[in-house]
Amino acid sequence: MSRKHTHPCAIAETLNILGDRWSLLIIREAFYGATRFGEFLTNTGISRNLLTERLQQLVEAGLLTRTPYADRGTSYVYDLTDKGRSLEGVMLAIIDWGNRELYGEGHEPVRLVDRQSGLALAGVRPVDEDGNLLEPSDLVLELGPGGDGRTRNRLARAKQDIFRASDLKS
Amino acid sequence: MSRKHTHPCAIAETLNILGDRWSLLIIREAFYGATRFGEFLTNTGISRNLLTERLQQLVEAGLLTRTPYADRGTSYVYDLTDKGRSLEGVMLAIIDWGNRELYGEGHEPVRLVDRQSGLALAGVRPVDEDGNLLEPSDLVLELGPGGDGRTRNRLARAKQDIFRASDLKS
Repeated sequence: MSRKHTHPCAIAETLNILGDRWSLLIIREAFYGATRFGEFLTNTGISRNLLTERLQQLVEAGLLTRTPYADRGTSYVYDLTDKGRSLEGVMLAIIDWGNRELYGEGHEPVRLVDRQSGLALAGVRPVDEDGNLLEPSDLVLELGPGGDGRTRNRLARAKQDIFRASDLKS
Repeated sequence: MSRKHTHPCAIAETLNILGDRWSLLIIREAFYGATRFGEFLTNTGISRNLLTERLQQLVEAGLLTRTPYADRGTSYVYDLTDKGRSLEGVMLAIIDWGNRELYGEGHEPVRLVDRQSGLALAGVRPVDEDGNLLEPSDLVLELGPGGDGRTRNRLARAKQDIFRASDLKS
C-alpha cells in the first residue's frame, strides 16, 4: 500500500480507505447483495490475494463486517455496516457521473430508476440539515473545528465558492 | 498503472480515471482554485513524477485543460473542463461522507456552508430529471442500453433495491 495522506481533509481521509482501483467495486458488490469471497472474486475480476487484502482493509475501516459462515471457520460472510451503507450518496454520485459523462445518454450499462414514477436518476443535489435543497454555487468553504494551521493557510488562499465557475464570479 | 477494468459499469469506468490515491486530491485543488504545477505539488504533498503522470491522465480523460502560461512554453496552467466541473456531486458526496463518518460532528477539518442561510451541507440526495427528490430505497437497478451479457447476468442475480437494507425488505 502507498503511504497514507496525513493532512486533515475529508477527501484525503476517504482516499486513505477507498482510493484504489478495487475497493469501491467491492462496495458495489456488497450493495448488489454479494456476501461471499467467491462472489466478490467472480463479479469484479480481482485477484485472490488483492481481494483478501482489500476485504481486510474494508473490515478494519468499519465498512464491512466479517462473520463465520455456519460452522465452517474458514468461510465468511461479508455484510455492509451502517457506515458502509452510508456510502449510498457517494455511490449514487459516481453512478450518475459515470453514466452521464463517461457513457452518455443512451449508452448507460446500468440505470437506477424510481420504482414509483419509472423516472431515472438524474443526479445528486446537496441538502442542508432540514432537507432543503442547496445550490452548489452558493456553498462556501469554512474552516471546521478539526482543521489545523495547514488547513487554515490553504483555505486563506482558496477560492471560497468552489462550485462556482470563475467566469460566473460576481 | 494497474490494468483497466473492462466490464461496462459506471463505477468501474470512473475508477479507471479516478481510482487512485491522488487524482481526486488534484481535482480538489482545481476546485479550490489551483492552476499551476507548483500549487498542486505543495498543496497535496504528491511527488513531482507522480503529479506529472496524474495531470497528464486527467488532461487525457478530459477533466483538465493544459494551456501554456504566457510566453513560457515550459510552464502550464491547468483548468477544470465542464466534464471535470461536473464532478461537483461526487466531491460533495465524498466531503459529506468523510466529515460525517470519518471525522464526526464537531471534528470536520473543512465545512461547506450555504452563504444565504449559514446552514452546513448535510448530505446529497438523488433527484430525477424534473429535479424531484427521490428516495434511495425506492431506486431499483435496470439494465441500460450499454449493458452487455455479463451486465444482464450480474443484474439477474443482484438485489434490485440496492439502497434498501435487507432487514427492511418487504
